[in-house]
Amino acid sequence: MAAERDRSVAPPTISEVAAEAGVGRASAARTLGGYGYVSPELRERVLSAAEKLGYRANALARSMSTGVSHTLGLIVADIGNPFFAGVTRGISDFSRQRGFDTIVLSTHEDLEEEKAAVGVLIDKRVDGMIIASAAVERDDVAHIQDAMTRGIPVVLVDRAVEHLALDSVVIDNREASRRAVNHLIEHGHRRIGFIWGPPMKKPATTRRALTAAAARSLWTDGERLRGYLDALDDAGLPFDADLVMTGPKTEQNATVAVSRMLALDDRVTALFCTENDALTGSLRAVRESGFSYPADVSLIGFDDSSWAAVMEPPLTMIAQPMLDLGARAAETLLSEIEGASPSRTMHTLEARFVERASVAKRSR
Amino acid sequence: MAAERDRSVAPPTISEVAAEAGVGRASAARTLGGYGYVSPELRERVLSAAEKLGYRANALARSMSTGVSHTLGLIVADIGNPFFAGVTRGISDFSRQRGFDTIVLSTHEDLEEEKAAVGVLIDKRVDGMIIASAAVERDDVAHIQDAMTRGIPVVLVDRAVEHLALDSVVIDNREASRRAVNHLIEHGHRRIGFIWGPPMKKPATTRRALTAAAARSLWTDGERLRGYLDALDDAGLPFDADLVMTGPKTEQNATVAVSRMLALDDRVTALFCTENDALTGSLRAVRESGFSYPADVSLIGFDDSSWAAVMEPPLTMIAQPMLDLGARAAETLLSEIEGASPSRTMHTLEARFVERASVAKRSR
Repeated sequence: MAAERDRSVAPPTISEVAAEAGVGRASAARTLGGYGYVSPELRERVLSAAEKLGYRANALARSMSTGVSHTLGLIVADIGNPFFAGVTRGISDFSRQRGFDTIVLSTHEDLEEEKAAVGVLIDKRVDGMIIASAAVERDDVAHIQDAMTRGIPVVLVDRAVEHLALDSVVIDNREASRRAVNHLIEHGHRRIGFIWGPPMKKPATTRRALTAAAARSLWTDGERLRGYLDALDDAGLPFDADLVMTGPKTEQNATVAVSRMLALDDRVTALFCTENDALTGSLRAVRESGFSYPADVSLIGFDDSSWAAVMEPPLTMIAQPMLDLGARAAETLLSEIEGASPSRTMHTLEARFVERASVAKRSR
Repeated sequence: MAAERDRSVAPPTISEVAAEAGVGRASAARTLGGYGYVSPELRERVLSAAEKLGYRANALARSMSTGVSHTLGLIVADIGNPFFAGVTRGISDFSRQRGFDTIVLSTHEDLEEEKAAVGVLIDKRVDGMIIASAAVERDDVAHIQDAMTRGIPVVLVDRAVEHLALDSVVIDNREASRRAVNHLIEHGHRRIGFIWGPPMKKPATTRRALTAAAARSLWTDGERLRGYLDALDDAGLPFDADLVMTGPKTEQNATVAVSRMLALDDRVTALFCTENDALTGSLRAVRESGFSYPADVSLIGFDDSSWAAVMEPPLTMIAQPMLDLGARAAETLLSEIEGASPSRTMHTLEARFVERASVAKRSR
């Protein structure tokens, strides 16, 4: 039987002071750590509670509060994407528990915006940055290297970037894709559309052209395409460039591309959609083409949402652990801020395959 | 015939310099205004382009760049709500055009988090703040008044707060609700559920108790409830407290509440859902109760999304002008930063009623 912790002799924690004062833990940490803004009224309440409980800040906490602003910066590609909203929440929940606030900038997938955003975070003296970067080429990463040179720890989330020796927190996109496409193949599908692939000026006509384009694209896009190709290879199915959308990544373009795939003589009978907008665009095309799912076309989407669960029939989805991705990125960054050396590894979390009712046996 | 502007004599604009340099307008503005961070390589390109085009900063722009950080702060209740994501985009797009960056904090509808967030923005020396506040009572607004006392302009978005003499940018929630509920009444519905109302510890049994609770709730929640009651009154329909959800505002609770309304002897035949999660929770209850829409139950939701359009049948929705709300809030704030006095008015934009196929004539 484990001995119970004797609370009467253990020193009170910040959380206990916060509870006594009736304020949030972050506010208590801010007051007791002597950093950041706290209103006079709140400060008074926290200090009274601390006195009452006999709270004494420990030396480590005190030393940590010197020279740091207790703010993390987060740069995401698109705050409107529910995936990034979930990751943002994971980061801010975790960092708040540790007394850090998180400020967010959104770049709309534009590298110039991202460069400016890094500049803003440097100006704002954040203690570290978490970035879902739009960078791909070697020439794209100077702004991130600049932050690193200034001694600001940086962790990547969602997207690894080849030319940066940084910790990154991602899921195994390739394996998640392979599994989803394999699930379609197991249901008898042979003509499987991939929405969306790397954006290209002209549609790829060969597998070689497509994989070359993927190598010049966002890491996540490339990995998801590789998983699709893996599943085809595993099953000995031929690659057909007509079944991979390569145009601009918009919902409207997904509708156009899928409508074309549904009009082929040897049409697609299943679709694997790697983004939220790719999925809604595909659903629109299925309906507009006079088909219904899963009877005529099976569907799997990426990034589960409450909508996917209430569709009729409900959609089979790959669910990313958004909160965990955010929490792990924050944890990794905070340990570097506290002095740990970057491990420069890819932290890979597992995606969940949520089977519902949008996949059926091939009927034609 | 209008005379064409003679471009050969007009001085070049920042946008033209940006285009010549092949950089974003914000980066060009930052370089030419001499504020904020720009990478050495980018600065060089912008200055070369400026020299080539003969750009000269105008005096107003120069004076404006003195003493301001060219950063706006935005505090939203929940970055994961697509509505706030849209508003955020509207704000950052508009402010970026004017050379301002936007940093965002999310409060999870928690007033303590909001107070801390205002403190962070003060620490970060933003030039102004836009807040979707969780404040309701007079005692809740000291943190916002504190920012105002420090001379930091504040504009409210989405939610007016009674105890603050500030500009706010909102939609006419009451009228949007009235119109939606009236649409249901015109289709013969008499038993119309309202998901969700103000959260209460115990369900309201009288209209008076409900409106009193609404007066102590978020402004938007109260306005939407008032619009519902207006429509009932206009049609001479009786109020029934059993048809208003008043529990915690969660998707799960919406499912529970709607399931109960569908099990009444005199059950609801229509539902008006005022939030995204209220709608998905309601859809789940309709299906789990063995009903389908619109045959058994008509539905109208708030905050249109691409999902609502691809549901089968597609959903009739109230669409808020999210980007315009954000842009107007940014415009109002920037004019105050530039010295205009706050007009202390409620800027009311119009919501759009998007009729699709989730409302049918009452069949029972």
